[in-house]
Amino acid sequence: MCYELLRLLRERGDRVSGEALSRELGVSRVAVWKSVRELVAAGYDISATSRGYFLISSPDVLLPGEFPGWEDRVHYLEEVDSTMTVARDLARKGAEQGTLVTAERQTGGRGRLARVWFSPPGGIYMTLVTRPAVAAFMAPRINLLSAVAVASAVESLHGIPARVKWPNDVLVDGKKLCGILAEMEAETDAVRFVNVGVGLNANVRITDAFPDAVSLCHLLGHHVNRRLLAWEVVEGILRRLQCVQSADILDEWRRYAHTLGRRVSIATGDTTVEGLASDIDEFGALLVKRDDGSLATVVAGDCVHRTD
Amino acid sequence: MCYELLRLLRERGDRVSGEALSRELGVSRVAVWKSVRELVAAGYDISATSRGYFLISSPDVLLPGEFPGWEDRVHYLEEVDSTMTVARDLARKGAEQGTLVTAERQTGGRGRLARVWFSPPGGIYMTLVTRPAVAAFMAPRINLLSAVAVASAVESLHGIPARVKWPNDVLVDGKKLCGILAEMEAETDAVRFVNVGVGLNANVRITDAFPDAVSLCHLLGHHVNRRLLAWEVVEGILRRLQCVQSADILDEWRRYAHTLGRRVSIATGDTTVEGLASDIDEFGALLVKRDDGSLATVVAGDCVHRTD
Repeated sequence: MCYELLRLLRERGDRVSGEALSRELGVSRVAVWKSVRELVAAGYDISATSRGYFLISSPDVLLPGEFPGWEDRVHYLEEVDSTMTVARDLARKGAEQGTLVTAERQTGGRGRLARVWFSPPGGIYMTLVTRPAVAAFMAPRINLLSAVAVASAVESLHGIPARVKWPNDVLVDGKKLCGILAEMEAETDAVRFVNVGVGLNANVRITDAFPDAVSLCHLLGHHVNRRLLAWEVVEGILRRLQCVQSADILDEWRRYAHTLGRRVSIATGDTTVEGLASDIDEFGALLVKRDDGSLATVVAGDCVHRTD
Repeated sequence: MCYELLRLLRERGDRVSGEALSRELGVSRVAVWKSVRELVAAGYDISATSRGYFLISSPDVLLPGEFPGWEDRVHYLEEVDSTMTVARDLARKGAEQGTLVTAERQTGGRGRLARVWFSPPGGIYMTLVTRPAVAAFMAPRINLLSAVAVASAVESLHGIPARVKWPNDVLVDGKKLCGILAEMEAETDAVRFVNVGVGLNANVRITDAFPDAVSLCHLLGHHVNRRLLAWEVVEGILRRLQCVQSADILDEWRRYAHTLGRRVSIATGDTTVEGLASDIDEFGALLVKRDDGSLATVVAGDCVHRTD
């Protein structure tokens, strides 16, 4: 009910009487008042007078109410060890596609290759549960399309030319704006779920300790609306998932690619592949042309863009 | 200690004095006697006289002691809901490759596509934890090589020409002898574990209720040694895993293939692909030539061999 009331106040964009709200929501005026109190406690600024209620502002927090039509699927936690862990538990219990775990802070944020993901306040930390009807070998495409969804959202909302680094970072001017982590559980030939974790430096203060990172608020000189950006990213991932089998996914990644055409050095287990990143194959593996002309197909590893 | 004693008795194949055992194992004679008692309680037939101990016979149960050199990694359960569930919990807690869960009976055995796997006494029910250093899209190969490991073990130990049905059943004369189920957990680009479940009709009495199934004891007219067969299968899977990236894996599957060259009908989600099964691709997908000459690549589904 709380979120229906929020949606009504948003839609009107004007003061709405308690009586009208009570009628439209089909609940008592006391219930209306209770919901308003809940929203205020969560950080919403609502003016209440004898003439009714008016939504002055929403907190810039990834609360369920900020994902219109999606409220029941959003699990917001102020502080959590990692949204990946919570989302995994939910997915294992059968949570449907679109289930989203958001957090204000992560105490044990996880990055790729078992690394720590530093998660200071102001960032967007969320994990989206997806259940694509694909075989496990299609799953790497979900990394690619998620990175593209982030780059595309940053570009369209903020006019910043974001690019994707293979396999799934998002860069601006060669510096890291966002990391993606995907976690899959599958059986023989069917994916059970792929959880997509996003760690996006939205309003994060970047210190000298992280010279290779960048945040939107630094680039723009002002804070961004995290709610709008998070929702655009989630919608973008879900929309692209519908055509995960299509070659369009790969083409869009190529258009956003920062890695292609660059010299790369990729540590993969016990060897390092060096050469020119020439393309990705249909499974999202990176094709690297070595200096001796031979071609390497790299399916996983730590990619460094070289400037020499 | 219990298993070291068992190994010693096996190696000698003769009566060994308590004193000699005590010396070789570096424990007291009371400890030797305790171990003997444990083995007898588990079903081993050991003759104990004043001249020492002699191993008369081992029970045909998949006990840790029946996997020489592997004892610490074998978890035997007389009855379990599913060895898959136990192995999953172990793998999630970090169990190393080669960890094996065996059971005499399963009350909730699982088959592919969320089906029940009927698990009467006399069968081999086990799940092997593997941690191949491959990307997720290589994982389907583990299905293929596991099915081949079973077919090859059955053929070499019992002289029965077993064949593999795509994706991962083992057939004799077109009837199902064994099913394989693989369960994977992976992150972005690295497999965390792939658990391989084997349900093999070794000494199972096949009733009229299962006309499409067959068991080794029916085929041979006598019970088989489940311990030897299980060990041969486990060893065969682990050996093939070492070259999971090699094309040899696919070639060996092709040699054992029952499906190739046959007319098949495969239900995949909302459509059915019909035609001639012509080959598998490098990711283990089945290539089906339709009657109109077009080629379908089937990554997952329920395959029926047609006789029309």
